[in-house]
Amino acid sequence: MRTYMLDPASRTPLYEQLYRLIRQDISAGILPGGERLPSKRRLAQHLKISQITVETAYGQLLAEGYVTSAPRRGYFVQRDLAVPPRASFVPRPVQERPAESCFLFDFKTNIVDTDCFPFSTWARLSRAVLTDYADRLLLEAAPQGEAELREAIRSYLLAFRGIEVSAGQIVVGAGSEYLLHLLIQLLGRDRVYALENPGYQKLYQIFEANGATVRAIALDSKGLRADLLGDASAVYLTPSHHFPTGVVMPVPRRMQLLQWAAEQPGRYLIEDDYDSEFRYASRPIPALKELDRQERVIYLNTFAKSLAPSLRIGYMVLPEPLLAEYRRRYSLYAASVPTFEQHTLARFLESGAFERHISRSRNVYKGRLDALLEALRQSPLAPFLEIRGIEAGLHILIRVKNGLREEELVRLAAENGVRVYGLSAYYAPGSRPESATMLLGYAGIASERFQEAVGLLCKAWL
Amino acid sequence: MRTYMLDPASRTPLYEQLYRLIRQDISAGILPGGERLPSKRRLAQHLKISQITVETAYGQLLAEGYVTSAPRRGYFVQRDLAVPPRASFVPRPVQERPAESCFLFDFKTNIVDTDCFPFSTWARLSRAVLTDYADRLLLEAAPQGEAELREAIRSYLLAFRGIEVSAGQIVVGAGSEYLLHLLIQLLGRDRVYALENPGYQKLYQIFEANGATVRAIALDSKGLRADLLGDASAVYLTPSHHFPTGVVMPVPRRMQLLQWAAEQPGRYLIEDDYDSEFRYASRPIPALKELDRQERVIYLNTFAKSLAPSLRIGYMVLPEPLLAEYRRRYSLYAASVPTFEQHTLARFLESGAFERHISRSRNVYKGRLDALLEALRQSPLAPFLEIRGIEAGLHILIRVKNGLREEELVRLAAENGVRVYGLSAYYAPGSRPESATMLLGYAGIASERFQEAVGLLCKAWL
Repeated sequence: MRTYMLDPASRTPLYEQLYRLIRQDISAGILPGGERLPSKRRLAQHLKISQITVETAYGQLLAEGYVTSAPRRGYFVQRDLAVPPRASFVPRPVQERPAESCFLFDFKTNIVDTDCFPFSTWARLSRAVLTDYADRLLLEAAPQGEAELREAIRSYLLAFRGIEVSAGQIVVGAGSEYLLHLLIQLLGRDRVYALENPGYQKLYQIFEANGATVRAIALDSKGLRADLLGDASAVYLTPSHHFPTGVVMPVPRRMQLLQWAAEQPGRYLIEDDYDSEFRYASRPIPALKELDRQERVIYLNTFAKSLAPSLRIGYMVLPEPLLAEYRRRYSLYAASVPTFEQHTLARFLESGAFERHISRSRNVYKGRLDALLEALRQSPLAPFLEIRGIEAGLHILIRVKNGLREEELVRLAAENGVRVYGLSAYYAPGSRPESATMLLGYAGIASERFQEAVGLLCKAWL
Repeated sequence: MRTYMLDPASRTPLYEQLYRLIRQDISAGILPGGERLPSKRRLAQHLKISQITVETAYGQLLAEGYVTSAPRRGYFVQRDLAVPPRASFVPRPVQERPAESCFLFDFKTNIVDTDCFPFSTWARLSRAVLTDYADRLLLEAAPQGEAELREAIRSYLLAFRGIEVSAGQIVVGAGSEYLLHLLIQLLGRDRVYALENPGYQKLYQIFEANGATVRAIALDSKGLRADLLGDASAVYLTPSHHFPTGVVMPVPRRMQLLQWAAEQPGRYLIEDDYDSEFRYASRPIPALKELDRQERVIYLNTFAKSLAPSLRIGYMVLPEPLLAEYRRRYSLYAASVPTFEQHTLARFLESGAFERHISRSRNVYKGRLDALLEALRQSPLAPFLEIRGIEAGLHILIRVKNGLREEELVRLAAENGVRVYGLSAYYAPGSRPESATMLLGYAGIASERFQEAVGLLCKAWL
């Protein structure tokens, strides 16, 4: 009879220790299929433990199917316990994220300055929501988003974007990527989606990961070329401020796209209004959605850029026909944003804190933009530069006409401690920009440091 | 010259009022394409406003492309402004949710009693996280989930489920539906997924909405029949406690499935451990993941049942080969759970509050289960009932052998103010249970009320 070493001082009960040890023996084949286990009385005597302990361990093994029992004959090891051998590969620990290399300056575009965020206001509203809603925060959120938040978004859209929709048309979700998953399900994988080229390349990956067919459509100076849409029946657009070139689509092109959408049933325009808040020169151009008379525009926005990337809250406005379809087929999906965050954001919007935050951040970013432009225009680089995209957003484009190719410019800047981003990374495979053009995101760099950063670029490029 | 009515008392600046009115005229065709606008000076005189105001309004119209300008000739309405006519359909307001009918008792299964949730502890931890992390909460969350939360989940899985994984294998997401979207992308749409039949019917919809092919696989008394898997290469399972029949899959069947997975490269088992916390009789059966020696089991769980449905936090544990693939292809996706919630949950787990909460809720639910069973066994219905699924979870099944069909039982109960759920709703189309069986979820009803509820069922069915 095998002796099992039990530890009475352990936090694990004796029966469980015994159960685990016998199970190990069975899994390892030490107790083969068909073998009879010692009787409860004998094993209890042998191990100097109570019979109840053995009985509980055997009971567990029986319940889990490791052993069978036969009346008056005892317990037997289950016969068909084919334990698959351990896989032969040695799992290598996977590195979580590539190490960030060290740059003095990083002109990255996907950054917001969280210092601008009024954290104390947010924390105060969070505490108030915890107190006021208390355990009502535990109830399941409405699948489309909490009514209070959708109402706050509705009224924001009307006041600041001139877009008149009903709160019922708004769908709240955990970021724009999540909303795109939903949207592709709603519009279907069997259609062709037109994406801007150049554009946000992650979109291509998201559409493809969702099994949708995408077509890269070239731009001209007015934005996406409506005459190249071909077999596409849905178009993803950033008309307020094209990413990354900064082109603002003029109204005639918008009309042309709306006309295109109206020509055939089932055509849709997806308007991503991702940074319409940050516009420095004139008032914002009206959204495509504002001009939509035929319910063909799906409006998409997120608070990742205007508030903080850690708040995974985006929303879309569905045209009525799509809304009915969404409710019919997808109300089954649970809400994807915690109730608590939804209420805190609703209060942040209602209280005017969002508006004040945007206007303050706009000033901060405008100051940085001016400092960057000043540094560039006063530098020896100035004669070689053509600057674009300064009306809006959080980055500019500079075309560098010193004869160097894009890759060389990026490499030379890096060697001098400055990270800049070539425009060609935003082009679909097989196409590229006509000239060497860099993206400079300025949201993450303090105004007084641009002089130094531009100095390093001069050193690198001249 | 047209007269525009401007309101100097309005909060909207005069130039913007003028800009909007002219735009309306253009959109309505009142100012046709090619028409020349009045000169700035003349319009200013006509409307008794400053010339700057007109200039700003014209400038905005020009920027947006509503008008063009010709040197020394003035401003002209853009010619190709094809405004699509307003759609002819009248959008009907869509009803948000079907009205809940009024029942005295609702034995629904998808409910947890939020009274059990230690809200004050949660609120205290939330406040502490706001204070301790402050604006670090604004930084973008790690795509796979915050390290602190993944470590807390790792240590929970080891202590309470005996599952040994690394924190690096854990992917946090906004609920299990979101994680399934991810998983289907990772495993691919071109394979056949086997789902339990009966089972959670929403799963069929989720897989199909994601473009995946599903196969409904019948169960026997040991759970899903491994011999019927056919051309499937991934299986979705609830082995700890089958939903909805309550079957606990015995170890030999688990081994058989692990063996099946090991037979061919790329086969995977998706183990949904959705309510393993609520087990009343013996200790929990070991998870399939614990027996996984070949890295073929994807473990999936959520805090929706064990904490509160409003916290949209789930997680999955990826086997090493899939993890590498996930990192390569999907690290581009931003985290889907707010940083704040992740840290609060991490503290809730670390502090032992989760463990205490589970053990307290388990007692509450056990009390309700006992009260329901007592009421059923003492009632005149007892001789007609066969009760199953009492070892775990938050619902039981009763087979009602009084000659009535399922639909009749549901209808008669409803007429007496009690909502019960027929088992056939959990079967794939074309299949149904052998006998009239009801699901009774007891988590949402107080112990002392079961007597009355069962009394109404007797009235309805006898």
